[in-house]
Formats: sequence, structure tokens, C-alpha cells
Amino acid sequence: MTARVGFVGLGLMGSRMAANLLKKGHPLTVWNRNPERARPLVAEGAVLGGTPREVAERSDVVVCCVSDPNAVGRVVFAEDGIRPAAREGFRYVECSTISPGLARRTAEVLRAGGADALEAPVTGSKVGAEKGTLIFMTGGRRATHDELEPLLLEMGSRAIYCGETGAASTVKLIGNSIITFMLQGLCEGFVAARKAGIAPETLLEVVMASGYASPYFPFKGGAIQRRDWDTHFSIDLMHKDQTLMLEEASRLQVPMPGLAALREVFQAARAQGWGGEDIAAVYKVIEQQAGLKP
Amino acid sequence: MTARVGFVGLGLMGSRMAANLLKKGHPLTVWNRNPERARPLVAEGAVLGGTPREVAERSDVVVCCVSDPNAVGRVVFAEDGIRPAAREGFRYVECSTISPGLARRTAEVLRAGGADALEAPVTGSKVGAEKGTLIFMTGGRRATHDELEPLLLEMGSRAIYCGETGAASTVKLIGNSIITFMLQGLCEGFVAARKAGIAPETLLEVVMASGYASPYFPFKGGAIQRRDWDTHFSIDLMHKDQTLMLEEASRLQVPMPGLAALREVFQAARAQGWGGEDIAAVYKVIEQQAGLKP
Amino acid sequence: MTARVGFVGLGLMGSRMAANLLKKGHPLTVWNRNPERARPLVAEGAVLGGTPREVAERSDVVVCCVSDPNAVGRVVFAEDGIRPAAREGFRYVECSTISPGLARRTAEVLRAGGADALEAPVTGSKVGAEKGTLIFMTGGRRATHDELEPLLLEMGSRAIYCGETGAASTVKLIGNSIITFMLQGLCEGFVAARKAGIAPETLLEVVMASGYASPYFPFKGGAIQRRDWDTHFSIDLMHKDQTLMLEEASRLQVPMPGLAALREVFQAARAQGWGGEDIAAVYKVIEQQAGLKP
Amino acid sequence: MTARVGFVGLGLMGSRMAANLLKKGHPLTVWNRNPERARPLVAEGAVLGGTPREVAERSDVVVCCVSDPNAVGRVVFAEDGIRPAAREGFRYVECSTISPGLARRTAEVLRAGGADALEAPVTGSKVGAEKGTLIFMTGGRRATHDELEPLLLEMGSRAIYCGETGAASTVKLIGNSIITFMLQGLCEGFVAARKAGIAPETLLEVVMASGYASPYFPFKGGAIQRRDWDTHFSIDLMHKDQTLMLEEASRLQVPMPGLAALREVFQAARAQGWGGEDIAAVYKVIEQQAGLKP
Repeated sequence: MTARVGFVGLGLMGSRMAANLLKKGHPLTVWNRNPERARPLVAEGAVLGGTPREVAERSDVVVCCVSDPNAVGRVVFAEDGIRPAAREGFRYVECSTISPGLARRTAEVLRAGGADALEAPVTGSKVGAEKGTLIFMTGGRRATHDELEPLLLEMGSRAIYCGETGAASTVKLIGNSIITFMLQGLCEGFVAARKAGIAPETLLEVVMASGYASPYFPFKGGAIQRRDWDTHFSIDLMHKDQTLMLEEASRLQVPMPGLAALREVFQAARAQGWGGEDIAAVYKVIEQQAGLKP
Repeated sequence: MTARVGFVGLGLMGSRMAANLLKKGHPLTVWNRNPERARPLVAEGAVLGGTPREVAERSDVVVCCVSDPNAVGRVVFAEDGIRPAAREGFRYVECSTISPGLARRTAEVLRAGGADALEAPVTGSKVGAEKGTLIFMTGGRRATHDELEPLLLEMGSRAIYCGETGAASTVKLIGNSIITFMLQGLCEGFVAARKAGIAPETLLEVVMASGYASPYFPFKGGAIQRRDWDTHFSIDLMHKDQTLMLEEASRLQVPMPGLAALREVFQAARAQGWGGEDIAAVYKVIEQQAGLKP
Repeated sequence: MTARVGFVGLGLMGSRMAANLLKKGHPLTVWNRNPERARPLVAEGAVLGGTPREVAERSDVVVCCVSDPNAVGRVVFAEDGIRPAAREGFRYVECSTISPGLARRTAEVLRAGGADALEAPVTGSKVGAEKGTLIFMTGGRRATHDELEPLLLEMGSRAIYCGETGAASTVKLIGNSIITFMLQGLCEGFVAARKAGIAPETLLEVVMASGYASPYFPFKGGAIQRRDWDTHFSIDLMHKDQTLMLEEASRLQVPMPGLAALREVFQAARAQGWGGEDIAAVYKVIEQQAGLKP
Repeated sequence: MTARVGFVGLGLMGSRMAANLLKKGHPLTVWNRNPERARPLVAEGAVLGGTPREVAERSDVVVCCVSDPNAVGRVVFAEDGIRPAAREGFRYVECSTISPGLARRTAEVLRAGGADALEAPVTGSKVGAEKGTLIFMTGGRRATHDELEPLLLEMGSRAIYCGETGAASTVKLIGNSIITFMLQGLCEGFVAARKAGIAPETLLEVVMASGYASPYFPFKGGAIQRRDWDTHFSIDLMHKDQTLMLEEASRLQVPMPGLAALREVFQAARAQGWGGEDIAAVYKVIEQQAGLKP
């Protein structure tokens, strides 16, 4: 039996993930703040729901993938949101990157209605969303993970169970924190290399020949070299995630001196109007402080 | 014709590199501050020189690999050092990680004597030194790089030319700076995970499935999990390199706010007596600040 | 005509401020979460209100001084809070240190009821509260400042008008940020001095003879020397204020790299169980990182 | 009996200090790298020495006040420097801000010649130098401090004995570190205030009414408001002192995470060509990162 699936949030990632579900043959109801973006999916056979609540009522499982934590609040807790449609057996999959606390509150209210929620933030770009090679981190009841894993694998290649609700969001935020460090390390290195007259390609060649090599370095390093700030992951969104991480760290009483310092570099990028650009563009802040002209 | 080679500095790395040269059939003269460490090589046919100068006099090329920049000063500039033996055609290869300034001074004095120096810091652990899979970064005259590349490839698998003298040291220091960022990101993440009740293996599994994966994470992350502080690269040596990088950055007028902050974590580790342990042990500082007991 | 005054929050500061108002002859109604603390004031003639709402109904002006921003929410917005008692001419004075945003929301809801709010955070210790020498920073309508200034001067020696609602909270948070810097500078200096064998008194003597002298240095420096962590201003409260400042800075798009880094030192103190101690106790974190035993 | 005094270094501070010694009736021999600057003193009766050595030979005590630590090396250790003139009873007073290590080396070589050195860095601006109200911090033998104190008090109002040679330099560097913190706290606060629409004067008024008031805040805050970057203490010199402090901290194994982070702000100012301006001009870096136009 093929589950009836709802999909809320048809942005860069969501539209591609929803398309994969449709291809797998699921009856699909979709919703997006701006309904225009639903058109291509509707053309392929999806039904456009009037509200998240309606989507939930027409579906066994609703997957949500939005970029703004406020949007999650609206989707879940509003009167025409998911919550009033919670019922025995209903499942909600939160793929947005949100705070562990919001994940816990979501699970709590849905469980109160006999339903269950699984947090399942993703890693992988829009390319991964398109090809169905995303990696999901999941948090919630183990049984719910097992139950929903087949659905997740229709959109991705792996689903790694992280623990109770909140654990997956935390792992996702830690991952973005690690990215922050790698990117800052790369940017400071690039600027030093440039001022020392060393070609960035040479630096990248050495990095990639070393034990700390990572495909992330040529990925972002290449963008920096080309000054290509086309957005894969925006500075604003990363800043939001860094902030969520520091808030969670504060709750856990974990000092994160490195991340706290590096978040301010992203803040500086936002203050200068680069918040919508790719995170690679924090390079411009480092460069500016070094007195380099673009 | 097989070059007569000298090797100065028979530590963790040097002894293995020298052994490879011996195996390739080079007549080898060696020197080490503590001559005891030369015994195994002498047993294999190497000659023990009385001073670096004597080594240089008996060799066409001298390779130096010591851990302490003061030692380089002694090897090169002392009365019984390499310098007085500099002569037309003589070559000196500096594999130690030193300041770009010291690399430049070394090249300058040797060139004054008609010889030439190539800086060639390495990346790769003692395992790489043993197997001959080290990566060399080289700095100096392009022709000298070309001339010495075959010799380097007897100890390693690649030699990447970085530019004029000083460039290779700078690239090496930038690389160690990037490692510092990755390690701090990992440590802050591990502590957050631990306080959130998330297994470190889960975190590493997600990291390794993501676009920013690097073998460095399970390498150091595994050591942290096992609390195995056995030294591959000591906190003291890394702190020295961070200091050299910040000095060079100061000369180049490059702010490195991230590295500057992270160096102080290494300082905290040294102050608590962990300077001789592997750099993975900076985890203990992060853990301590988070109020975690080992 | 003497205004009927209500006072909500009878902690370290509030109880002393309320006592001064009582001495000046104001009919006084008080409320505190734990009513026990109201006893001494009731013994002097104050009336104990059952709820903040009742206090507001019986008073022309209500002054609030609590330490926890959640408490402000409860006092103002709850059903039995101040809000339903808002009426033409009613005045609310918020002396708690809260976020500029909360100050604005408070003013908004009270103005909707025809009343007005003035934010008036204070500087000065419990001694200042007792002697009536507090300094108030005020934010709101200028006319409301002028109207309430005489009341404030019954509890303090000055009321500095900072601007529209939110401005005074912002100024207060900036002030606490400056304190954070001064304290960290002092602590790093003390530890360096101690390790160099220099007496802290000598350092303080020089500081106080210099152009950057401030009474704050011997105040906190003396406490550190005596290892007297008796709370004037707790690490937890300061950490809360640093967090509010960084949130407001994020809203204003102001990078505060220094403050962000220093907040993590406070986090480290909290993680180790020192959150209830005076902010001088962050010295223990610096000392610990330097490998010094108390 | 009036001591014959030599004075080396006739810059902003030195020329005024030397003038005071001349007024007190000391036979004065002076030297400056650029002899032009000695003219006014020679016009008043000072003798111009050909080399520091000649100054030392003609004097019982030599006072040195230069801005560059390399200059100190030249004055003390060169063949025509002070050192060869060291003899029983000769005294050398080092008023330059130098590393504790250089102070110790200086004392050592002069003591080897039967003479003695006292380090005596100063606090106080050129105004203090002119009026003779400088504060000296001294390090060295207590007896030498007592012997030279009267001379110091002809140029200043106090001489605070800090301990063995090196202690006074350390105290001076710690003081400059504290200034760095205060200035950064002020700058971050100013930018936040500006973006929040709060007048800087209001912020300063509150600061000066608070327990952490310091004349340093209106001094530098006023300059920032007027955008007056006229040099009292240059960014380059402060950066040099921050570097000396961090080097000494490294030797003492003292992490100084705050100072390390803030030094990079000064680095950013230097990289952008503001190194010769007053330290107040680091405000421009903070402002720039916040996206504010001057």
C-alpha cells in the first residue's frame, strides 16, 4: 500500500524532494506559502491543498521542508496548521533545520493527538535533493524512524538515527558549526596565501594531498577563486543555524568559543548586505579586513 | 651517478626518511644531536658525521628534518654547521617546518656560497615517512626543485612546487592552521554532542556522509573517543607552528582572528601540562570548560 | 498630591528601592512571587497585593524590579498581571534589565490601554539602592520621563533620558558589555602578573595611577585577590544580559566579536557550577586555563 | 652633587623629559638618530653626543626613551652603543616599552660591566612628559630604584617599584592590554548605540555615572565622536606592545584569549593603512564590519 503523502514547503530543496515522492507513485498533496511554486508539481499530478491542515487531513504522512523557523511555527501550530489534524497513526516529518527545542515541542503536541513526529534534517545540496541522494539525520522514537525510513529513502540514500527528538537537530547544527570552522580556516588561509603571493590553486592542491583533505575545500575554495557567490547555502541561513547552535549550547552549558567568534564574521557579512549570498562570500569580510581589494 | 646524501635530524620522521634514502642506494652520512639515534642507520651502512659541517662536506645534498627552529639555526648557521661547507653545486633541503623568514635567510647564505637551498616541508605522518608516501611542498628556485624532485620522490609520492623561498613554509603553516580549525570544530561539536546525549560515533557517521567529510575527522575523533593522546603531532609543536603563522601573518598584515583565538586553546593545554601530547588532547581543554569530567 | 505607588519584585534591589518610596510617604502596595519577602515592608506600612493586577489597580504608578525576563512577562502580560489594569493616566516603570524588544512590547500594550510605560534600568549596587543614589537610564516618551523623574529621584540621584523605548535597555546592555571587557582584561592581566611573580596590588597601583584608571578595577581586583565571590552581580545574570545584548546586536546587524568571545568565558564558568557567584569569579576560568591552582 | 645625565631618544616623549632634566640643572648630553631633533635642547645648553657610547662616556646616568625595540638593540648592544661604556657606578634607565626579555638581557650585559640598568617604562601622555607628571614603573634591583628615584621624580610624579628586571615591562604591557579591552568594549558599544539611534554622548554620560567610569572613556570616546585620529598612541605601537605581551604570555604559558582576539582588530586596522593613526581609529574597523559609513 502506498502512503498518501503531503509536502509543505516547495523551495529549492522541497520542490525536488516532493518531485521524487511523486515519481515513486505516492498520491501527493502540497502546500506552499506562495502557491505559484506548486504549479509544476500540480502539473505532474499533485493536489494543491488550501492550508497545511488540509494537507494533513488528506495525507498519512506530511513532510515539511521550509527555511525559516517562524514558518515551521506557522505550519505546525497555527489554527489551520498540522496540529489540529493530528490523529492516531498520522506522521509528521520535519526536514527543516530548526532548534532542538522546537523539534521537541512539535513532537509533544502531535503525540498528544495520538500522532507522532520525526525530525529529519538533511545534508546534501539541491543536487542531492534532485538525485535523491540526500542524507537524513533522524530524531524521535526508534520505531517511528524504522516505519518512515523507506519513505526517506525515496528522497535520499541514507537515514542515520541520532536519538531522541532533538538529537538530529543538534547533530545538524553541529555539522553546520564544523562547516563554519572549515570555511573560516580556508578563508584566512586564502588571504594569507594571496598576500604572500601564493596561488590559491597551489594551496588547494596541497590541502587535497594531505590527511585533512575534504571535498568541501575545493568546492568552496573554487567558488572563492571565481568570486562566485551564487547561493547554495546563504549567509543568512547559516547565521540562523549558528545562532540556534549557540542557543542550544547555552542551554546545555557548553562554551563554544570558536563558533561564537566565527558567527560574528557572518554577522559582519550580513551587515554589509551579503546575507543573501552563499556562505563562501564571508571571504569578502576576511579579505576586507586584510586591506585587499576584490 | 647516485648522489651522496647527508641527513641531519633523525627523529620520528627523519630516521624513516633517511632509511628510505639508504635503501635506494645513496651513500649516506648522518648526524643527530643525540648520536645514539643514528645507530640503526649506521648498522645499515650509513656513516656518522661528527658535525653538520662534516656531513655537508661529505655530501652533494644534505636533507634536514628537525622539530625545533632553534635546531635549524644551529645546523645551518653555527661554525660547525652547513654554511661554511656551502660550495658551487651543493644543495640543502630543509624539511623542517620553519618560519618563511628563516627559510629565506638560509637560502640567502647558501646562495652567497654558490650553493642553493630548497625548502621542502612535508605532510604525512610517520607512517607516510616509513612507506615513502610523504607529500613535499617546495619553495625556492624552480630549477632547484626540478633538480631535487627525484630525490624527494625517493622519500615521498609527490613534490608540489609552491613558489619562491618562503612560499612552501607559508603553505605548510596555512595547512596547520586549517587543521587547527577542523580540530576545534570537532572538539566543540563532540562536547556539545556529549552533553546532549548523542553518541560521538553517530556524529562522526553523519560528518562522514556529508559534503564536508574528511578522513581527519574519524582519525582525530576516534583518538578522542578512545582518549588516546599518543603523539602523532604534539600540542607544543602545533603551538609553535601557529605562532610562526601568526608572526608571518603579522608581517603580511593579514588578520587571522580565528587562528589567533584557537591558538590560545593550545596555550591552555600547554599550561596544564599537556604540551607533549597529541593535538587531539586539546579536547581536554574544551571538555574542562564545559564542566565535563573525563 | 503624593502618588500611590505599587512595587513589584522585592529582591536585593527592589526591597531597598521600595523602602525608600515608603519613607518618602507614598501609599505603597507591594507584590513579590514569594510573599515572605514583603513582610518587613508591610511591617512599615505597605499593603501586600494579591496579584500584580491588584497592585496596579490600587496604584497610580507601578515600579517593577525583577531579575528574570520571564518574570517580567508574567508581571505584565498574565491575566492577573499589570496589563488588564492599564487605564488612562496609569504609569508603569520597568527597572529590570530586559531586552529592548520586551520593553517595546510592554510599552505598546500599555499604551493601547491609554496608559504609558517608561523603561528605567538602573546602575548601582544594593548599596546605591539603599542610599537612594542609583542612576536610572530611561527610555520612552520624553513627557513621561519628565513626569516620572521626581519619583525616580526618590530612589536615585539621577535619571538620564536615553531616547525612545528600547534605548535605555540598549544602553544598559552596552554598559554591561563594557564591564565584561574590563573584567576580562583585568583577569587576563592578573593571571599574567601572577605567573610573572608580580603582586596584584602592584598591578592595581599602576592601573590606578594611569589614565585608564577606574574604581571598578580595585573593586573587582580586590575581590579576586581575596577570592571573595560573594555576589553583587551574578555570572548567570551577566550571561543573560550578554545574551540579550548579542540578540539585539544580531537584530541591529552589529558584529560584536569581542563580546561574543567573552560571553563564552562566562558560559565556561556556568558549566562548572559558578553561575551563582559574583562575576569576579570568571577569574577562576582564566586561572584554570593557565594551569594555576587556586 | 648633580648627576651628569645622558638622554637617548628625543621623540614626542623623550624631548620633553630631557627638557625637564635640563631645567633641573643637570649637565645633559643627548643623542637622537636624527640629530635635527636635538637642536632645541642644544640651544638650551645640552651637548650633542656623536654616538650613544659617547653619551654614556660623558654621563653618570643615561636615560633612553625610543619607540622601536630594534632601536633599543642599536642603542645598547652596538659597538658604538652604551654597552662598551659600562663601568662601575654607571646607570642606564630604559623608559622605552620593550619586552621583559630584552630588559633582562640589557641588565645582564650592563651588570657584567659593573654598571646597572633599571627598566622604567612610563604611563602618561606627552602632556605628562611636559608637565613632569609621568608615572614610572620600575624593575631591577631595589637599591638601584631607590638610588634613581629622585632623578625619575624630576621627570614624573611617581615611581612604582614592580620587582625584578622584567616586572616593570610586564606590568606596562598588561596595562596596554587592559586599554585594548576598554577600547574594544567602547567601540563595540558605540557602534551598537549608533545603529540603535542612541547618541554617543548619552552612552558616555551613563558610563561616567556608573561604577565602571574611567576618564579613558570620554578621552577616547570624544575622539571617536569627532573622528579625530590625531596620534597620542599609534595603532602600530599598540600592536607591537600587544605582540610583546602575547609573546611573554606564551613564555609564561598564560592563555590570553581576549587579547589575542582583539590584537587582530588592530591588525585589520594596520592592513587598511591606519597603523599610524591613534588607537581610537580601530573604531573604523568595527564600524566597517557593521556596514556603517563614516
